[in-house]
Amino acid sequence: RRIMRPDDANVAGNVHGGTILKMIEEAGAIISTRHCNSQAGEPCVAALARVERTDFLSPMCIGEVANVSAEITYTSRHSVEVQVNVMSENILTGAKRVTNKATLWYVPLSLKNVNKVLEVPPIQYARKEQEDEGKKRYEEQKLDRLETKQRNGDMIYPIINPEPHTVGYSQSSLIHLVGPSDCTLLGFVHGGVTMKLMDEVAGIVAARHCKTNIVTASVDAINFHEKIKKGSVITISGRMTFTSNKSMEIEVFVDADPFVDESRERYRAVSAFFTYVSLSKEGKPLPVPQLL
Amino acid sequence: RRIMRPDDANVAGNVHGGTILKMIEEAGAIISTRHCNSQAGEPCVAALARVERTDFLSPMCIGEVANVSAEITYTSRHSVEVQVNVMSENILTGAKRVTNKATLWYVPLSLKNVNKVLEVPPIQYARKEQEDEGKKRYEEQKLDRLETKQRNGDMIYPIINPEPHTVGYSQSSLIHLVGPSDCTLLGFVHGGVTMKLMDEVAGIVAARHCKTNIVTASVDAINFHEKIKKGSVITISGRMTFTSNKSMEIEVFVDADPFVDESRERYRAVSAFFTYVSLSKEGKPLPVPQLL
Amino acid sequence: RRIMRPDDANVAGNVHGGTILKMIEEAGAIISTRHCNSQAGEPCVAALARVERTDFLSPMCIGEVANVSAEITYTSRHSVEVQVNVMSENILTGAKRVTNKATLWYVPLSLKNVNKVLEVPPIQYARKEQEDEGKKRYEEQKLDRLETKQRNGDMIYPIINPEPHTVGYSQSSLIHLVGPSDCTLLGFVHGGVTMKLMDEVAGIVAARHCKTNIVTASVDAINFHEKIKKGSVITISGRMTFTSNKSMEIEVFVDADPFVDESRERYRAVSAFFTYVSLSKEGKPLPVPQLL
Repeated sequence: RRIMRPDDANVAGNVHGGTILKMIEEAGAIISTRHCNSQAGEPCVAALARVERTDFLSPMCIGEVANVSAEITYTSRHSVEVQVNVMSENILTGAKRVTNKATLWYVPLSLKNVNKVLEVPPIQYARKEQEDEGKKRYEEQKLDRLETKQRNGDMIYPIINPEPHTVGYSQSSLIHLVGPSDCTLLGFVHGGVTMKLMDEVAGIVAARHCKTNIVTASVDAINFHEKIKKGSVITISGRMTFTSNKSMEIEVFVDADPFVDESRERYRAVSAFFTYVSLSKEGKPLPVPQLL
Repeated sequence: RRIMRPDDANVAGNVHGGTILKMIEEAGAIISTRHCNSQAGEPCVAALARVERTDFLSPMCIGEVANVSAEITYTSRHSVEVQVNVMSENILTGAKRVTNKATLWYVPLSLKNVNKVLEVPPIQYARKEQEDEGKKRYEEQKLDRLETKQRNGDMIYPIINPEPHTVGYSQSSLIHLVGPSDCTLLGFVHGGVTMKLMDEVAGIVAARHCKTNIVTASVDAINFHEKIKKGSVITISGRMTFTSNKSMEIEVFVDADPFVDESRERYRAVSAFFTYVSLSKEGKPLPVPQLL
Repeated sequence: RRIMRPDDANVAGNVHGGTILKMIEEAGAIISTRHCNSQAGEPCVAALARVERTDFLSPMCIGEVANVSAEITYTSRHSVEVQVNVMSENILTGAKRVTNKATLWYVPLSLKNVNKVLEVPPIQYARKEQEDEGKKRYEEQKLDRLETKQRNGDMIYPIINPEPHTVGYSQSSLIHLVGPSDCTLLGFVHGGVTMKLMDEVAGIVAARHCKTNIVTASVDAINFHEKIKKGSVITISGRMTFTSNKSMEIEVFVDADPFVDESRERYRAVSAFFTYVSLSKEGKPLPVPQLL
């Protein structure tokens, strides 16, 4: 639970989707790490493996209080499903509204050997159906993870002197040097830090295309294929892939370059699709220019 | 509730007292602003007026989760007393311990007119004694506030080539330009931001004196005499005032310079005493060199 | 004065040159804004116009205290020259050393009308020679500013599949969305924020070239040709321009894209040359691979 500050928001005062994704992931990491260490055994840290598709139901504003709550809803042998809810509270009027619901999957990695995945203590279900539904969600996400791994080879090449409203015109990338405060106890980047940077790039792509105030409407399922080590340089690239009258779809790639570790080449760590909408100064939806 | 990161801690991995004070104050600001707006009326923001003396019972470490909870324990006509508890949780072992308890006083200021103090909706007490005890605490702090205002005129002048272990040797000051994210909706600095800077200066004074790893042991009552506006430059100065065998007492002043606002001179905004202890590399208490 | 934290430094524990440049600029901005408002008149904010060439005499480490002090050394009718000294203090040993000396030029801009440059109150010189020498420095920097404005048109185009140790292999760019905390009261980016990002890009270029721990050795004179507005996206690009056996020279450009302001095209705001050295894990200088 924390107060939203000017630094969490865009110039129009709407909190960045990335700020919210980062808070969601921190809540998920706390609850799943706590759960995976709840039985005697090797100490471990829960690492984010996947975030299911999530909608941003309404924008949050500077001065509001974000209430983030998390619950474990399913455990497989080696993974934990966490449901996170975000409520926005206006402490001046007392008004509260749900702004996000997200489902995250974590995997416990040994503190002694980061390549060792440990076993997850099973949770108790109130009803047998809850376990069956959880198992179904588990199988579905596993399948989806495998599929996305294959379409994961694309690169974004720059275009010289692009025309307005083409893909090349708005595509953007940013680089970030991974510092200690970006990382877990294991020395790998928090999933939430990566998602915040991904949202930042997607937002810049959307704003370059529309030249208006834009906000995150939803994020497609995100798979975290590979860990990113402290000291790496990460390149986050985004490009517009589709526009409807009301929204824009932006694909974002994260490539990691562990360049102080000579044994490794640059690799693709994460990819995802973000959907943005364009807003007028009064916060009303605006039509999106067609992508050429 | 959040995970402690490397930037929240000193080189030995102990979380700065100032980081904890900032979290305590944010919790207090949320609960008291929410309470003061709970009845129809002029919207307001709760401003920190005073923090009672507080002890840091045990140091918190990087990777632990800080759990901060707040409760309103007394209301006078124009002020709210909030009790905040901080628990440190090691999510690997499940161990929890209380690290802090603090009592804070807030005053509701109108969002429309920052110089107008509004009325506080009364709370219901479970027992009559609670109200009486609260009233007693209220009277005591009111008296103490008046007294400190008078001894509030001191300045710290630099000393050239000071001898080790003298006051002049370790005294320190830092300046900070107040940015937007340091401020409340009213455009004045959050009390927690000020306290974090005060702890930083006190820590530098203590480390200069001892030349060891030091941690905050307690903070004396802090009175916030005057608000500090966005865009001001604040000077935070600290000097050692007393040493016992086991601890050091450091006085800290905060002076604000609203220098683009022509109508105001530099003024003393806050002052307080911090107590620090010196620790060995293994975290054991060390004797403190005598102050000359 | 503040303690250097893990996020201020690279993985080897050396504080980024950019962190130091940002502190230097903040000190300069405070002292020159204070001076320019010291006489009754229109309130103003001092904006950074130029930083003279500066050397990083020795690296600073995490846990050390940076002492930054600033002094006004010359005033022309519309500009202020500030001399800033940075000392690094190891508060455990008491050892102090000078790590930087920098000279900065500021211009007072009216708070009411950002395009209006105000007059600077003159300072008193202890000796006539000081004024004469200041005037000479003033004329020299004025000339240099004019000259750099002309050679300021270059762009960095990406190279597909570059060979190691070529210019294209290490060239890098990052984008940054200008947030509220990056800006002055006037809503324009602090010069120090820009320099920190420039150093970040230059450091990534140097590390990609060497694949070792690298540190900033010096920065050439930097001229701030144009202001950058809050909400702009800035692209900071760097490429290696020269290597000797012991050091690398990296050119850095800053381009601003005020894309919510439709009346303005992307423009070149700043450019500069950074010099880096390569260090072994023990902190000894290493030979630099030759630039192809």
